[in-house]
Amino acid sequence: MTGAAPNERRGPFITFEGGDGVGKSTQIARLAERLRAAGREVVVTREPGGSPGAEAIRALLVQGAADRWSARTEALLMFAARADHLERTINPARARGAVVLCDRFADSSMAYQGIAGALGREAVATLGALIVGADGPTLTFVLDASSQEGLKRAGARGDGDNRFEAKGAEYQERVRQAFLEIAKGAPERCVVINAARDIDTIADDIARITFERLGAA
Amino acid sequence: MTGAAPNERRGPFITFEGGDGVGKSTQIARLAERLRAAGREVVVTREPGGSPGAEAIRALLVQGAADRWSARTEALLMFAARADHLERTINPARARGAVVLCDRFADSSMAYQGIAGALGREAVATLGALIVGADGPTLTFVLDASSQEGLKRAGARGDGDNRFEAKGAEYQERVRQAFLEIAKGAPERCVVINAARDIDTIADDIARITFERLGAA
Repeated sequence: MTGAAPNERRGPFITFEGGDGVGKSTQIARLAERLRAAGREVVVTREPGGSPGAEAIRALLVQGAADRWSARTEALLMFAARADHLERTINPARARGAVVLCDRFADSSMAYQGIAGALGREAVATLGALIVGADGPTLTFVLDASSQEGLKRAGARGDGDNRFEAKGAEYQERVRQAFLEIAKGAPERCVVINAARDIDTIADDIARITFERLGAA
Repeated sequence: MTGAAPNERRGPFITFEGGDGVGKSTQIARLAERLRAAGREVVVTREPGGSPGAEAIRALLVQGAADRWSARTEALLMFAARADHLERTINPARARGAVVLCDRFADSSMAYQGIAGALGREAVATLGALIVGADGPTLTFVLDASSQEGLKRAGARGDGDNRFEAKGAEYQERVRQAFLEIAKGAPERCVVINAARDIDTIADDIARITFERLGAA
């Protein structure tokens, strides 16, 4: 590991949030391409996972029946994976000045377990303060689309991690509203992106906002 | 699961704490025998583990190099396992009036990660309040012996879970002092037992104290 850069040169940490199927991974790939073309080192990662330890915890989270874990056990496992991810992947990358792009982060815990789930906002906020603290994202894109649109895309993708996608349209709408509430509560960090538009238009928006922020930093 | 008994009839939750090799599992087996002879239902369990989900988390904790997890990640995994253990094993057993005997519980997180380890008392206390709350032990036996004596017994046992036993005598002494500090801070719950004596004498002490408490409950 290289020594930590002075704090003002710490690389930006950009997260992509939103329900299943809103296009997060597509948009992360697009932004990574543009940042690399501009000469930036980019680290693309995801949650749960993003480091060897966190991927091992992810395996516990995504396998098994939908009720394998209670909301609070799930949140603790998420934050355990997050602690490892921060320590082993995100913080070292930022310390050497890289831009970190992450598919889901602590806002997903707040949306899924804290607001839409059974755990409650306070418990998730307590864990967030304990684990994330000052290491949280500097910019968050909340990709927003109707839950019907999202479920359609998530179904079309057909990947194996179905535990989070098995709960139906009403639940996905609660999650959507949860992300909008989070964005409203942190307007200096969060930008809500209309994800029902075509991919190129969304990518242009995200790149413009990102480069504006990088220029200002 | 049967319906929860009224709170005053909730079964006692008795934990056994102390460094490696002080004789916790031997004493638990002895006490279980005596309680069963007296007609009580007894559930014997252990941490980390004690429920299918918690045992899966335990496998992550006890395998791999000593530095596989940071102190805070380790504590989060411990508390995730503990949440599952409480929800699936301990609370249901107590609700039907059983006596629960548990080999290690939250005091071990405080001793190993909070006091002897790098995480600090406050973070472990925050997790304890969030996860354990009012579901904690009603009686705790802190088995106390010199760390040399404990290491000798742990080595003789030769089991496979060596990650916690690989840190040397100085560390084991810090852990011993941490457990004594915890006991001093919760005298209504914790009883320090001199574990350097012979097994039968210790078992007599523990049984006498337990039956006194059960009689008073």
